Amino acid sequence: MTSFAAWARAAQERTEAALARCLPAAAIAPQRLHEAMRYAALGGGKRVRPMLAYAAGEAVEAPAGRVEAAACAVELIHVYSLTHDDLPAMDDDDLRRGKPTCHVQYDEATALLVGDALQGLAFEVLAEPGLHPDPAVQLEMLHLLARAAGSRGMCGGQAVDLAATGRRLELAELEFMHIHKTGALIRASVLLGALAAGALAPEARERLEHYAKCVGLAFQVMDDVLDAEASTATLGKTAGKDAAQGKATYLTLMPAREARAYAQELVEDALGAATGFGERGGRLADIARFIVQRSY
Amino acid sequence: MTSFAAWARAAQERTEAALARCLPAAAIAPQRLHEAMRYAALGGGKRVRPMLAYAAGEAVEAPAGRVEAAACAVELIHVYSLTHDDLPAMDDDDLRRGKPTCHVQYDEATALLVGDALQGLAFEVLAEPGLHPDPAVQLEMLHLLARAAGSRGMCGGQAVDLAATGRRLELAELEFMHIHKTGALIRASVLLGALAAGALAPEARERLEHYAKCVGLAFQVMDDVLDAEASTATLGKTAGKDAAQGKATYLTLMPAREARAYAQELVEDALGAATGFGERGGRLADIARFIVQRSY
Repeated sequence: MTSFAAWARAAQERTEAALARCLPAAAIAPQRLHEAMRYAALGGGKRVRPMLAYAAGEAVEAPAGRVEAAACAVELIHVYSLTHDDLPAMDDDDLRRGKPTCHVQYDEATALLVGDALQGLAFEVLAEPGLHPDPAVQLEMLHLLARAAGSRGMCGGQAVDLAATGRRLELAELEFMHIHKTGALIRASVLLGALAAGALAPEARERLEHYAKCVGLAFQVMDDVLDAEASTATLGKTAGKDAAQGKATYLTLMPAREARAYAQELVEDALGAATGFGERGGRLADIARFIVQRSY
Repeated sequence: MTSFAAWARAAQERTEAALARCLPAAAIAPQRLHEAMRYAALGGGKRVRPMLAYAAGEAVEAPAGRVEAAACAVELIHVYSLTHDDLPAMDDDDLRRGKPTCHVQYDEATALLVGDALQGLAFEVLAEPGLHPDPAVQLEMLHLLARAAGSRGMCGGQAVDLAATGRRLELAELEFMHIHKTGALIRASVLLGALAAGALAPEARERLEHYAKCVGLAFQVMDDVLDAEASTATLGKTAGKDAAQGKATYLTLMPAREARAYAQELVEDALGAATGFGERGGRLADIARFIVQRSY
């Protein structure tokens, strides 16, 4: 069995190649928009969501080709949300994945359209006729992704985040925000990867839901820890922004050591769920472990 | 047979009611986002795209309930694009449908999220499990809408529009822009309304494609004429903006009288296509006629 590092690199490369194929070529009109879409989506990123889709696909033996479409779709939603999040009207950030953000490199109107078009492309990729042998399952995948992206998912979490800036949240409120802002798309990544195999048995689905919930929160806890502790160079995005913007984070509620312990606890819980898939759940377990060990 | 005015009013009311049902209630968290989504989508609008979906549905005897989902989906895409278009980074407009635009009424970040969430909701509505008895046709509807909304459709047209500001376009370039910016979604409205009945016979599809192309261009020509000639009060949005912003319009290429004649010609062509459906194509014909007669 290859190491997790090698597996992760392969998953990242595969995601990069699949995105490069599904994004319109920069030579196709309107060229500037297509170039900017490729700028935003290609050449970097941890690709955590595609990795989760691949790992969940492996857990239920889904054909890799179909998982790839799911991986692209969730990553396109993620990249669109980053592009819009970085805009002056939102987080107003200049740096993303070690490069100037899309509106800095191009302009605000283009970055707005890039995000809009990437969201559309995510659904286009997943609605590809014949992608899945069972069109009803493919529809379920689309419905799940749309719901995860919308106001009762990711966009809703961002709205809560906006409203929370400068205000102290209780742990329950903070988790409500994260379950929406990042949790919904992480859940979709896991479930879509698995649905690529076909309809899910209730207990497999339950295990995946539990895994995704724990991993999603652990990821966010560690994001807050790293934002406070790591350097901008290591992160590839502006460090220390949360505190500077008065954002509610886990570190406003607990010391960093306690936050790390909380993340560790969530990861143990996720590992328990991954075990249910036997050896095939190995990559899900690897990703969970990686989340508390990463430094960027 | 009821008059077109009565039919159109009924279609508008039906669209309003269907949108009110599919939009999350303003009492659901995050409340401010849901309130703003309802503000942007409800209480106005010509509802031309839903009308086209209903009329195309009637032409092929599609069940009205299923057409309703298609009508909602296309209108949600339209409303999201208006909300983003009105942002300061794009057209920077204060007035829409006679009300303050979403970012004026709320704030820029909320208006950005409103547009993002409305786009997601459009796909959620159309991906509803069990909406269509043939899930493969439902997938085709989703694919068509996603393609129409994205960079090779509406978003692409907006990018061309941005690039064209302050530059004189030839007729061919101007039409390329409109075929993407408004034509793609008008085409999707017509085809989705018809696909609600089931897979389309090649000749019915061809007639609908031709109808949509002519109606889409005629609509845009008349939009340019009305922007130049009508008042802000009649339009419910800021009049004369195109000229003020140095935008390429049909009126920079031809006198208003000639533009009206061109629209009339396109409408005649659309009427020819509608005739192919016999009496059932009556509402498609009515809408085409309405486009050259409207004053707002």
